[in-house]
Amino acid sequence: MGNSNIDFDVQPMTFKKILVAVDEDDSSSSRKAFCYAVTLANSYKVPLGIVTILETDDLSVYDSLQPDVIEGRRQEMESAVNLYVQKAKDFGVDEVEGFLGEGKPGKKIVRETIPQFEPDLLVCGSETQDKSSIFIGSQASYMSQNAPCSVIVVR
Amino acid sequence: MGNSNIDFDVQPMTFKKILVAVDEDDSSSSRKAFCYAVTLANSYKVPLGIVTILETDDLSVYDSLQPDVIEGRRQEMESAVNLYVQKAKDFGVDEVEGFLGEGKPGKKIVRETIPQFEPDLLVCGSETQDKSSIFIGSQASYMSQNAPCSVIVVR
Repeated sequence: MGNSNIDFDVQPMTFKKILVAVDEDDSSSSRKAFCYAVTLANSYKVPLGIVTILETDDLSVYDSLQPDVIEGRRQEMESAVNLYVQKAKDFGVDEVEGFLGEGKPGKKIVRETIPQFEPDLLVCGSETQDKSSIFIGSQASYMSQNAPCSVIVVR
Repeated sequence: MGNSNIDFDVQPMTFKKILVAVDEDDSSSSRKAFCYAVTLANSYKVPLGIVTILETDDLSVYDSLQPDVIEGRRQEMESAVNLYVQKAKDFGVDEVEGFLGEGKPGKKIVRETIPQFEPDLLVCGSETQDKSSIFIGSQASYMSQNAPCSVIVVR
């Protein structure tokens, strides 16, 4: 208590490695998140990772039995990630890496992509389909609670 | 689905008004959050709000019956906020405003400070007392889920 805690000098703080999660099913907040991450990586001149997760739980049981349907989605997502990577490079970010995964987005990103890429900032959209809702989606919520790094939820 | 959603130009995205929540009881992540908010406000040259909430639920029933105890805490917090405001100004941020409230921090900030100050970014610490824990506190969690603006939880 008291003001002893405040007796410090302000140290400029920036991030050194940024990871952005993009979700094709949530174009509005995901796009904002992407634009923010690209702007930040470009102005700090730091590496940018772009991750998208194929939500295998989303595919119906029927679809999941058809390997060519999943394979088609995989190829769509791979070309989507490549397009995002190219957009970031075109904007001026030098180091850009794309990541693909399958499963629950929040868990996959926290448990696999983050340990692999080691960002100090994770950028994600709020995932709200409904513009009148201010609640964030379960994946954004999971990530902001469980990621070992700073997390920004962009609305 | 498909890549039609990705057919957009990257628009540079920055924030125009930043609010940072500081919590004296959580000096480490709160200090990081403050440094980040000040760095950002200074580099974007945008107004910065600094809010701290007297957690009246924290005071024991006995204490809460003693008006001079609460009044003492109020004065401590007021001078703390003033110190934070001065630190931000010393760092180079031109427009800095301090806010004080009483109650549950998350709710107060989302329902009172944000509608009043209208930031497009809320910066808060993760509130973890325990450095080995990656879970964020209930107030940071409430704010990231309920704030109408973008929220960054700084770790």
